[in-house]
Amino acid sequence: MAMIEPLVWRKQILELIDQRILPNSEVWVQVTTIEECYQAINKMIVRGAPNIGFTAIFGLALWLKNKEDKRTLEEAIDFLKSARPTAVNLAFELDECYKLIKDKDRSTHFTIIEEYGLKQMKDSETKNRRMSERVAEDLLEKYGKRPLRILTHCNTGVLACGGIGTALGVITVLHEQNRIDKVWVDETRPYLQGSRLTSFELLKQNIPHKIVVEGAASYLMSNGLVDAICVGADRVAMNGDTANKIGTSNLGILAQYYKIPFYVVAPLSSFDNKIQSGKEINIELRNEDEILKIGDKQLADESAMALNPSFDITPGSVITGISCEDKLFKFPYEGNIGECFK
Amino acid sequence: MAMIEPLVWRKQILELIDQRILPNSEVWVQVTTIEECYQAINKMIVRGAPNIGFTAIFGLALWLKNKEDKRTLEEAIDFLKSARPTAVNLAFELDECYKLIKDKDRSTHFTIIEEYGLKQMKDSETKNRRMSERVAEDLLEKYGKRPLRILTHCNTGVLACGGIGTALGVITVLHEQNRIDKVWVDETRPYLQGSRLTSFELLKQNIPHKIVVEGAASYLMSNGLVDAICVGADRVAMNGDTANKIGTSNLGILAQYYKIPFYVVAPLSSFDNKIQSGKEINIELRNEDEILKIGDKQLADESAMALNPSFDITPGSVITGISCEDKLFKFPYEGNIGECFK
Repeated sequence: MAMIEPLVWRKQILELIDQRILPNSEVWVQVTTIEECYQAINKMIVRGAPNIGFTAIFGLALWLKNKEDKRTLEEAIDFLKSARPTAVNLAFELDECYKLIKDKDRSTHFTIIEEYGLKQMKDSETKNRRMSERVAEDLLEKYGKRPLRILTHCNTGVLACGGIGTALGVITVLHEQNRIDKVWVDETRPYLQGSRLTSFELLKQNIPHKIVVEGAASYLMSNGLVDAICVGADRVAMNGDTANKIGTSNLGILAQYYKIPFYVVAPLSSFDNKIQSGKEINIELRNEDEILKIGDKQLADESAMALNPSFDITPGSVITGISCEDKLFKFPYEGNIGECFK
Repeated sequence: MAMIEPLVWRKQILELIDQRILPNSEVWVQVTTIEECYQAINKMIVRGAPNIGFTAIFGLALWLKNKEDKRTLEEAIDFLKSARPTAVNLAFELDECYKLIKDKDRSTHFTIIEEYGLKQMKDSETKNRRMSERVAEDLLEKYGKRPLRILTHCNTGVLACGGIGTALGVITVLHEQNRIDKVWVDETRPYLQGSRLTSFELLKQNIPHKIVVEGAASYLMSNGLVDAICVGADRVAMNGDTANKIGTSNLGILAQYYKIPFYVVAPLSSFDNKIQSGKEINIELRNEDEILKIGDKQLADESAMALNPSFDITPGSVITGISCEDKLFKFPYEGNIGECFK
């Protein structure tokens, strides 16, 4: 089975696979305006910190092409940034776009941004492989060549990150080296990125895996069934504190308790050198219906309420290593990560 | 709103509310034979360690009344015990039944068992209140009279335990004392006992609460939004290790990390004095479709697989207190709990 490309740029149109309804249906959504781009990010048609960043670049390109409204460039960028607050890639890519065009002639803007978007997507393939190989090497030192049981959370494959993915890229690299025994896929409530998307990607690659509820993490670890945990990131602070999909922090703390290596795998565009710790990260609260319903099916009583934080902060102190395209950072991170941004 | 009685004995018939489809539908299932009783427990029409125990007593009564097969008393008891392996209440109640009738005339058996079942259900009301009040008192010492934010897992109310429930009984007692600020209800995948049943019971009592995904536990605790965690038990070992619904152990370890008091609330019939530690507890693996589907709706790809352990073991070392009808045990538990069974 060929892997799906979740994001395809066709000059005047950005095509996105609707990740809300995968794997049951493969429906493509056409994005032709900045408003549609905002909605695609906000409603999670597209998701995953790196792919949100790429989508925003093309959303800006569409705005530059269409000149459809009275916004200034700064306003257009701020509008796109507001689609989702936690992942820093969105802001990172838009700030890069701004730097690239702010002093250039207006007539060149569209082409510059289009080329930048295509380059970033292409580069992510090489970068993802580099960061993934570093974790695979680190695990080789610890466990030798024996096949491993890796637990992962949410979806960090091509659907989220392009290329081979980030945390899921580690699994692909290990699989290429015959070093995967089994992948434990957290179903990842409420959006079920694990059951729906990660399992779908692993099936396409014939990588052996089983889906588990998130509550099973301690069961698996206490029974010696997990050799390592690999997750992605939406924002990494300079002390290693990492914002990622809700439930990641639970896994980090359990990993420390059970002395199991826990890796964050993310491009430098997910690092935020403006913040020293996770305390400064704004956590997005999403609609409670994501928890109270599945599709049209009501799970709880009609009058029940929910709280739906979409991310949490894993303390840097429980993270064994943070791998990016340039380096595998090891705990302690203070100073260590910051050096990269000098 | 009046609370539902999940289990009603009508002499020749045991009526059970079908907990698989609450709160969307209130359907009663009539149990008239030992086979139907086995199925009701095995398929989780009835659930919760104490209510499984009560159901089994009446299942045995039905068998004694009907004399419908060639089983010996011992075989009938073993058959019922095999319906679910982890909760000890099932075996406890059936062993008690056996002791009550083994030396008695066959003609008296039905009446003895029927009376025992009714007595156990009635006594659970008083016992549950006692064990719940002990935790409420312990929290008074720690926090004073201020309203508390309590996190709970699975369902431990009347639907699971009769009376006011066990862990949910603590919440009822605190609510009666105006000491509940808010209850965080873990949705509790895959069976959604939290979203479906605990929220339903709290709505009937007008107790303020919000449903959260299990992944949100660390988010809530790290943001100082949880004062205490209360859970039930399916089996408590003599060192305090506690088998309970999958995901409980995650909460215990997180509670220790964040220094939040974590209580197990369970009747003595959930304690197993034959086992020293949780290592000896058999964990039930249930059908993977409970994870891969919701009702008829397929969540993951048709060819995806899952692992579905129904319980986990929370180490006694992370449990602040274990409250039963006789006493609130405090860590360390070795010797301490065993004294009760001498």
